[in-house]
Amino acid sequence: MPDVKIAEALLMDTTGAAGERMHALIASLYPICRSITGDGLRETLARIGERIPLAISEVPTGTPVLDWTVPREWNIRDAYVKSAAGERVIDFGRHTLHVLNYSVPIHARMSLDALRPHLHTLPDQPGLIPYRTSYYRDAWGFCLAHNDLLKLQAGEYEVCIDSTLQPGSLTYGECVLQGETEDEVLISCHVCHPSLADDNLSGIAVAIELAQRLMAQPHHFTYRFLFIPGTIGAITWLARNEARAPQVKHGLVLTCVGDAGAFTYKRSRRGDAAIDRAVAHVLAQSGHPHRIIDFFPYGYDERQYCSPGFDLPVGCFMRSQHGTFPEYHTSADNLNFVKPAALEQSLDMLCAVIDVIERDGVYINLSPKGEPQLGKRGLYEGLGAGADRRQYELALLWVLNQSDGRHSLLDIAERAAMPFSLVARATDALEKANLLKRSDTT
Amino acid sequence: MPDVKIAEALLMDTTGAAGERMHALIASLYPICRSITGDGLRETLARIGERIPLAISEVPTGTPVLDWTVPREWNIRDAYVKSAAGERVIDFGRHTLHVLNYSVPIHARMSLDALRPHLHTLPDQPGLIPYRTSYYRDAWGFCLAHNDLLKLQAGEYEVCIDSTLQPGSLTYGECVLQGETEDEVLISCHVCHPSLADDNLSGIAVAIELAQRLMAQPHHFTYRFLFIPGTIGAITWLARNEARAPQVKHGLVLTCVGDAGAFTYKRSRRGDAAIDRAVAHVLAQSGHPHRIIDFFPYGYDERQYCSPGFDLPVGCFMRSQHGTFPEYHTSADNLNFVKPAALEQSLDMLCAVIDVIERDGVYINLSPKGEPQLGKRGLYEGLGAGADRRQYELALLWVLNQSDGRHSLLDIAERAAMPFSLVARATDALEKANLLKRSDTT
Amino acid sequence: MPDVKIAEALLMDTTGAAGERMHALIASLYPICRSITGDGLRETLARIGERIPLAISEVPTGTPVLDWTVPREWNIRDAYVKSAAGERVIDFGRHTLHVLNYSVPIHARMSLDALRPHLHTLPDQPGLIPYRTSYYRDAWGFCLAHNDLLKLQAGEYEVCIDSTLQPGSLTYGECVLQGETEDEVLISCHVCHPSLADDNLSGIAVAIELAQRLMAQPHHFTYRFLFIPGTIGAITWLARNEARAPQVKHGLVLTCVGDAGAFTYKRSRRGDAAIDRAVAHVLAQSGHPHRIIDFFPYGYDERQYCSPGFDLPVGCFMRSQHGTFPEYHTSADNLNFVKPAALEQSLDMLCAVIDVIERDGVYINLSPKGEPQLGKRGLYEGLGAGADRRQYELALLWVLNQSDGRHSLLDIAERAAMPFSLVARATDALEKANLLKRSDTT
Repeated sequence: MPDVKIAEALLMDTTGAAGERMHALIASLYPICRSITGDGLRETLARIGERIPLAISEVPTGTPVLDWTVPREWNIRDAYVKSAAGERVIDFGRHTLHVLNYSVPIHARMSLDALRPHLHTLPDQPGLIPYRTSYYRDAWGFCLAHNDLLKLQAGEYEVCIDSTLQPGSLTYGECVLQGETEDEVLISCHVCHPSLADDNLSGIAVAIELAQRLMAQPHHFTYRFLFIPGTIGAITWLARNEARAPQVKHGLVLTCVGDAGAFTYKRSRRGDAAIDRAVAHVLAQSGHPHRIIDFFPYGYDERQYCSPGFDLPVGCFMRSQHGTFPEYHTSADNLNFVKPAALEQSLDMLCAVIDVIERDGVYINLSPKGEPQLGKRGLYEGLGAGADRRQYELALLWVLNQSDGRHSLLDIAERAAMPFSLVARATDALEKANLLKRSDTT
Repeated sequence: MPDVKIAEALLMDTTGAAGERMHALIASLYPICRSITGDGLRETLARIGERIPLAISEVPTGTPVLDWTVPREWNIRDAYVKSAAGERVIDFGRHTLHVLNYSVPIHARMSLDALRPHLHTLPDQPGLIPYRTSYYRDAWGFCLAHNDLLKLQAGEYEVCIDSTLQPGSLTYGECVLQGETEDEVLISCHVCHPSLADDNLSGIAVAIELAQRLMAQPHHFTYRFLFIPGTIGAITWLARNEARAPQVKHGLVLTCVGDAGAFTYKRSRRGDAAIDRAVAHVLAQSGHPHRIIDFFPYGYDERQYCSPGFDLPVGCFMRSQHGTFPEYHTSADNLNFVKPAALEQSLDMLCAVIDVIERDGVYINLSPKGEPQLGKRGLYEGLGAGADRRQYELALLWVLNQSDGRHSLLDIAERAAMPFSLVARATDALEKANLLKRSDTT
Repeated sequence: MPDVKIAEALLMDTTGAAGERMHALIASLYPICRSITGDGLRETLARIGERIPLAISEVPTGTPVLDWTVPREWNIRDAYVKSAAGERVIDFGRHTLHVLNYSVPIHARMSLDALRPHLHTLPDQPGLIPYRTSYYRDAWGFCLAHNDLLKLQAGEYEVCIDSTLQPGSLTYGECVLQGETEDEVLISCHVCHPSLADDNLSGIAVAIELAQRLMAQPHHFTYRFLFIPGTIGAITWLARNEARAPQVKHGLVLTCVGDAGAFTYKRSRRGDAAIDRAVAHVLAQSGHPHRIIDFFPYGYDERQYCSPGFDLPVGCFMRSQHGTFPEYHTSADNLNFVKPAALEQSLDMLCAVIDVIERDGVYINLSPKGEPQLGKRGLYEGLGAGADRRQYELALLWVLNQSDGRHSLLDIAERAAMPFSLVARATDALEKANLLKRSDTT
C-alpha cells in the first residue's frame, strides 16, 4: 500500500500556482483548430507530451473499430467568405469555430441566398459563434454570430474552405503510470474540440497536473490517462483494448472542470461503483456546492465505457454540466470562462477522490470482543482537546466497531458521516497498535 | 408478439362515442334489482352476453366452495310499507335500494314502533337511501331517506316483502378471449349491486368495451373477464378453477371507474407485480391526478385473489376509492354521478396498461460494445427536429444501453422516466435495424 | 407460549404506586458513593438483592478480562479540603461528587496555587458540581461548583483524601428469571455512578420493578438482569460468559429513564434486530414523543455488547440522551430531576416491548384459499360497533392475509400500522377458531 499521505500532500499545494499553470496551458492550446483527426489534434498531443510521458497511437482510416470505422483524416489550412468588395466577412483565421468542423473543401462563388443554408448561427444568443460538426455526413458550412449574419448584404460571395478529407489516421495519446498492481484507474479526456476552453481544455489541463502529481509519488493502482477524440476515440481505444478493459477498476471522464459553477458528478451505469461512492463522499465532505446525477446514456465518453458490453465503473466529473449553461458549445466558452481557482479546486477534489480509492480497504479488528483498552496503548496521547479530539476518538471507535471484514474504510466513513481522511488516520494508528490488520493484503 | 400498435390504436377513439355508449349501457342496467344470486343477476348477465361472448355458470345452492357454501337463491317481486290510509310510504317499485338486499319474505301488520328496528337510514345524509344487505343472517328490512322516516306517523302499517329464498343457484359469467398463449390476464367485475351506477355498473361497462376492443385485435395473452357476485362469486370461481389460477399472470379488479374523481390504484398483495408497475407507470405518464395505495385486505375481490393460498398478481383499479366518497353505497351513486368522459378516460388508461403488459419484454443489444453507429443505419432519419427528436434519440440510447438481458422495456421506461410507448417505438426501430433481439422469444 | 395478557396486565398498574416506589428507591440509594469497585457498589447491590433474587460475583483484582484487567479496588472513607481557619471548604460528606472518583489517597498541606490543578469545575454551569473519574490513571482531585472555587482565598489548605486503592475485587450482580427456554433477554444497568439520579439510579429502579413483574408471571424467555459497573463490568461479564452470549436473543441497556424528556431509543449495531423493531413499534404506537437513533460506538454498555466479536442485538433505551442535557454528569442530576410519572411511563413502555418479544411469532393460515367465512364462526360477535370493531375486523383480515409462514405478528402490525396488541388479540381469536396455527411451535 502506498503512503496514505499522498493525496493529503497533494492537497497542500494551495498556493494557486497549479491553477495559474493550468490556465496558462489552456491559453496556449486554445488557438489550435482540433478535430477528431488531423494535425491540430497531433499538435495538441505533442504539447501534452512535453509535460507527461505520452504514447501516441495512429490508427489508419478505414480500420474497423467495434461497430464503427475510422474516418478519413481532416485537415484545414484556411477558410473564409469574401464579399464582392474583397473583404473576408467570415474568416477562419479569426476563430476556429467559424468553420463547420470536418467541412469538405469548397471554393466557389455564390449568392447570399445560395450560401445561406450553409451558415449556422444562434438567433437566441446573437453575439456568439456556435460550434458545429459534420463528421459522418459530407457537408460544408460556416458558423458565425447571428448579429454578423444580419449585416451580410445580398450579392455574390467567394466561399473557400481549404480543407482536405483523405485517408490518413486517427490519433490519440496515452499516459500510463505503472502502480503496484495491474488494476487500473482510467482518466479520460476528449481532445477533439477546437477553441473551447472549458470543454475540454480544462479537462486536459487538470488531467496533466494530476498525472504529474501521481508521477511524484508511489501509488497502488496503475493510472491510464487517455487523451482521445470524443466517441470515435473512445470506441477506437476500446476496440484495441478489449482484453484490458476488465482491469479498469475505477474511472472518470473529465470535462468542463474549469468554470466557476458547482460540481456535478454523473454516476457510472452501475450507480454504486466504488468510484461513485468515493466522489459522492469527497464532494459531500468538501462542503462545496455540488449535485450527483444518475447515469444516462448521453453526454461524453462514459457512454462508451458504460455501454452494456463493457459496463466499466466510469463516471463523469464536471463542474457545470454540458448542455445546461449558455456558454456551452459557443465562442463564449473562452479563456475568461475558465478560472485558475476553479481549475485548482477541481484538481483538489480529484486528488481527494484518488486518496480514497488508493487508501480504501477492509480491515479486521484483532481484538473484536468488547472494546480494546485504548488508553494503555497510548492511543489517546498527544491528541489535543476539544471537538477535534472527540471526533478522532469516535473515529477510532467506529473503525474498531465496524472492522469485522464486511466494511471498508469508505463504508465506515459513510456510516459515521466522517471525512475519509479522519477514518484513515484512525486506521493507521490502530494498525500501528496491532489492533487492526488489513484483510485483503495478499 | 402482437402488433405494438394495438393499444395505440385503441387510444385513438377519442370521439367520445365510447363514453356515451358506456353511459347508455349503465342507464339500461341501472333499474334492475341485482343481488349475489337470482334473476336480476341473470338478466344483467344476459344483457352483457348480447355484447360479448359470455359463458354462464350456474352453481347449485349448497355447493361447498372453499370455506364457504353457495347460499339459497334470492328473488324478489315486490316490497312495500303501506300506511293505514293505503299509501305505499316505502315502495321497492320506486328504488331497488328500498329493500334490505336478501330480505326474507314477510307480510304482516305492525305498529311503527315494531317496524322501526327494520328501517335503515343515514341520519348524516338525510336525503339519501342507504344500501344494506344481509346475505348470511336471515333478516328483513327497508332502507329509506332519513327525512322520509321522520315523516312517518305513528300507527299501524302493512309490511310486505314478496321475496323468495330457496334452493337455486349462484350465477356468473365469463368472457374468455383466447390469445397466443395460455397465460392469462384476469379482469374481474362484481355484478351483484342493485341500482348503484359507479359501484359497479361502471366497471361492467368499461370491461365490456375493453373486451370488444381486444376482440378486434390479436393479442399475446388470453383475457378472462369475470362478471361475478362479490366475495361469494370470486370464491366460487376460485374454488372451481384452482388449477387454472397459476396461469393468471396479471389481473385487475375494476370498480368505481365512472365518477369524476382522480384515479386510485391499489397494488396487489405482492406490491411489485408487473401489473402494479404497469399501472403506476401509465398513470404517472398520463399526467392525470392519481394515487397509488398499498394492498390491504379489505375492499373488493382482490381480497380473494390475493388471499395467501392464491396470492395472484391482481390489483384494483378505481377512480374514487370505495368508502371514501359520500355517494358510496347510497342512492346518490346514480346516473348523474357517472360521466361519459370519465368512463372513457378510464378505458383509455386500461388500454394503455394492456399495451404495456402485452408489449413488455426483455431485449438483447446485439452490438453491446460501445454505441452502435445509428446514423449509418438511418435511425435518425425522418425524425423531425426539436424536443421530440431528442427524446426519441435518447430512447434509442436508453434501450441500447439497458438491453443487457436484465432489464425489460418497462424497467427501461421507468429508469428513463419516459413513456413506455416511446421506448417501445425505439425498440421496434432497433429490432428492425438488427441491433436488438427479444431475449424471451421461444 | 405464555399468556398474551401478561404485559397487558402489567400495563394496568397505572395507580402511580410503581412510580412512587421507584422514586423512593432512588432516594434511598442516592447518598451512597458508588464506583466501579468497592463497598458503595456492594451496598447498592445488597439493597437490590433485598428486592429481587441477585447472585453476586466478585472478580479479583488482576483478573484478565478480554483486553482489560480488573483494576485495584477503590474505597473511600472521607475527603476534604480544609482552610487555614479549619473550615472544610470542600467536604465529601456533603456530596459524593466532590471527590474525583478513584482518587489515590493524599494528605498534605499546599497553597491554593498548588491545589488548583486538582480542582475541577464547570465555568459554564457555575452552580453545579461536575462528575469526574480517573479509573486508569493514578490521580487525585476534587470537584466543586465554580462559584465556590471563586470564593477560595489564597493561602495554605489541608488536603485529605482518605481512600484506599488496593487489591480486592470487582463486584456485580445478576438476577436470572428462568423462562420456558434458555434463550435470553438481557437487561443491563450500570451501577457505578455515585449520587446521580437519572444516570443511572433510574435504570436500576425500573429494572427492579420490571423483574418483579416478570417474577409474578410465566414467560417464554429467560430474563437476565445485569447490575454492573460501566465498561469494565460489561467486559468482565462478557469475558466470563462468552459461551452464553449467543443465547442473548434480545437486549436493552437501561439508562436515564427517569427524567421528563421524550423517549430516545438507540438501535443495536444490527439496526434491524427484533428488539429494534419492537421498541420502535411500541414507541410509535404509544403516541409519546420519541426519537429513534442509529447505533454509534459511544455511549453505555451497548458499546461492549455490540462490539464486532459479540454483535449482540442490544439497544439502549433512554428518555433524554446522555451528554445532551445540561444536568448530565452534574449535581443537577438529583432527586428532583427524576419524576415518579416518568419512571412509571418508562416501565410501561418496557412492559409493552416485552409483550411484543414474548408474544411475537409466525403463524400459518389454515384456510389460505380465499377468505374464510368469519361470520359463521362467531368471530364478529360481541365486538360492539364503530371504529373499534372495524379495526378489529381489519386486524383479523390482516392476520389471515399475511400468515403465510413468512410474516411474524410484528411484521403484520408494522405493515397494517396497527397496535401489536390488537394484532395479537385477533391472532388469539383466529387460533381459537382453528383458522391459524403457530408455525414455530416445537
